[in-house]
Amino acid sequence: MHTVLRSHAREVVIGPDRPFCVIGERINPTGRKRFAEALRAGDLSQVVVDVERQVAAGADMLDVNAGVPLADEAGLLARMVRLVQEHTDLPLCLDSSVVEALEAGLAVYRGKALVNSVTGEDDRLAEVLPLVKRYGAAVIALANDETGIPETVEKRLEITDKIVRVATREYGIPLEDIVIDPLAMTVGADADAVTVTLETIREIRRRYGLNMCLGASNVSFGLPDRATINAAFLAMAMSAGLTSAIMNALAPECVAAVRAGDLLLGNDPWGANWIAAYRAKAAS
Amino acid sequence: MHTVLRSHAREVVIGPDRPFCVIGERINPTGRKRFAEALRAGDLSQVVVDVERQVAAGADMLDVNAGVPLADEAGLLARMVRLVQEHTDLPLCLDSSVVEALEAGLAVYRGKALVNSVTGEDDRLAEVLPLVKRYGAAVIALANDETGIPETVEKRLEITDKIVRVATREYGIPLEDIVIDPLAMTVGADADAVTVTLETIREIRRRYGLNMCLGASNVSFGLPDRATINAAFLAMAMSAGLTSAIMNALAPECVAAVRAGDLLLGNDPWGANWIAAYRAKAAS
Repeated sequence: MHTVLRSHAREVVIGPDRPFCVIGERINPTGRKRFAEALRAGDLSQVVVDVERQVAAGADMLDVNAGVPLADEAGLLARMVRLVQEHTDLPLCLDSSVVEALEAGLAVYRGKALVNSVTGEDDRLAEVLPLVKRYGAAVIALANDETGIPETVEKRLEITDKIVRVATREYGIPLEDIVIDPLAMTVGADADAVTVTLETIREIRRRYGLNMCLGASNVSFGLPDRATINAAFLAMAMSAGLTSAIMNALAPECVAAVRAGDLLLGNDPWGANWIAAYRAKAAS
Repeated sequence: MHTVLRSHAREVVIGPDRPFCVIGERINPTGRKRFAEALRAGDLSQVVVDVERQVAAGADMLDVNAGVPLADEAGLLARMVRLVQEHTDLPLCLDSSVVEALEAGLAVYRGKALVNSVTGEDDRLAEVLPLVKRYGAAVIALANDETGIPETVEKRLEITDKIVRVATREYGIPLEDIVIDPLAMTVGADADAVTVTLETIREIRRRYGLNMCLGASNVSFGLPDRATINAAFLAMAMSAGLTSAIMNALAPECVAAVRAGDLLLGNDPWGANWIAAYRAKAAS
């Protein structure tokens, strides 16, 4: 199954027979106090810096989040999306829990965006899916609902089933435009967290063949040397069937693990990309 | 299933609920011209250096191979095993394709060794398994036979089935003392090589629950930046069910990927080992 995203000038295809899609997580004020203050004051200069650094580091798409407390998130996200598209032709992932912000972002976005996100909650489905349909976007759907983050694989699959049913039958959204987030929690709090995520990925791949995307940095929250943990997690998740991640594109260990994963899983024949990247690094 | 190996003073347990067993590959003259020449001349001083470096790097066991062309491999392996056991209490993996060398190594080894290796070939089974039984050792069994390295998962499972049947029924070797090598080939020559290996690992784990060990460095043969490829492969293979590997313990990326894998798969509760290793590194 192929999920196609577009900017005004470039197309990215997510799929199990394609190189993994690295979605840079950096343009997000959560946990970045100075960045949040600058955005609230209307200063978007750091956004341009974050675009350029993530593009240089090899991101395939960029996540854009404008979640600054007490700010006009809709207006801010629209400004940020416009600005980002002036500086890169990578397709974007529009990231907000506020429906009005998603709508404002989609209205100015040039291309076919990835909407981040909907959940299995009835009211979220009813708010977000009509937007996704109207703008012809694709959507990340989190496998959780009103009852919170399910601890079991079976419950995450039930929610996936519900989302797929509602999105395709009630809103006519094509199956390939639904990207499931199987949910990754920190292994520091629960030793079984990652094995549940990996098994959920395997089952979603086996039962639905859907593309998937998750926030890869969560798994190492609260632990030292996070990039090494995230890199190992990404390799594991790719081999289970994960096809994209919102991740730290500025951690070279993580991007290298993903590109090694492409090679190991047969999505970089003869290592052409791997060898080209090695030569580029050696020459720089 | 737990495979227990011992030296004179230490026990190592291989199992899916235990931290991954890192078997250092370095004490091997293959591809090390100077080392081979020194061994042929009776100079074993580099062996001691290789022991100390691999122990310091965090190996759980050490492979010992004396395969120097035109040398008395049996006599050499016996000398090397004795010397290695004078310098470390890690259990050893006795590595030879020459039955007389395995026997000479087992005769001087103090503890319960891992014999590397037998295959599914009738004559190899008939030569090696009586030795394994007599010395109460465990054995690595390669999933290949007279016809070469099987390209399919199904054929590797057939050979596994044969080995398990012969070893347990004809020689009375306990199931837990059979460690299957699912075979890892270079992905540079065949883009499907690793996916076949990973699927073989999953199926052996599912059908037999057996412990497994493979030569992890093979997958990156002929490619640049091998440690990064091997690290990603190890994470993938661990999540599929691999429980040990003969690997480059001197590549910090590889050892770190394995220890991150332990954490991610729930075999390092609360990250105790991970955090201790991080603090030790920070203090050094």
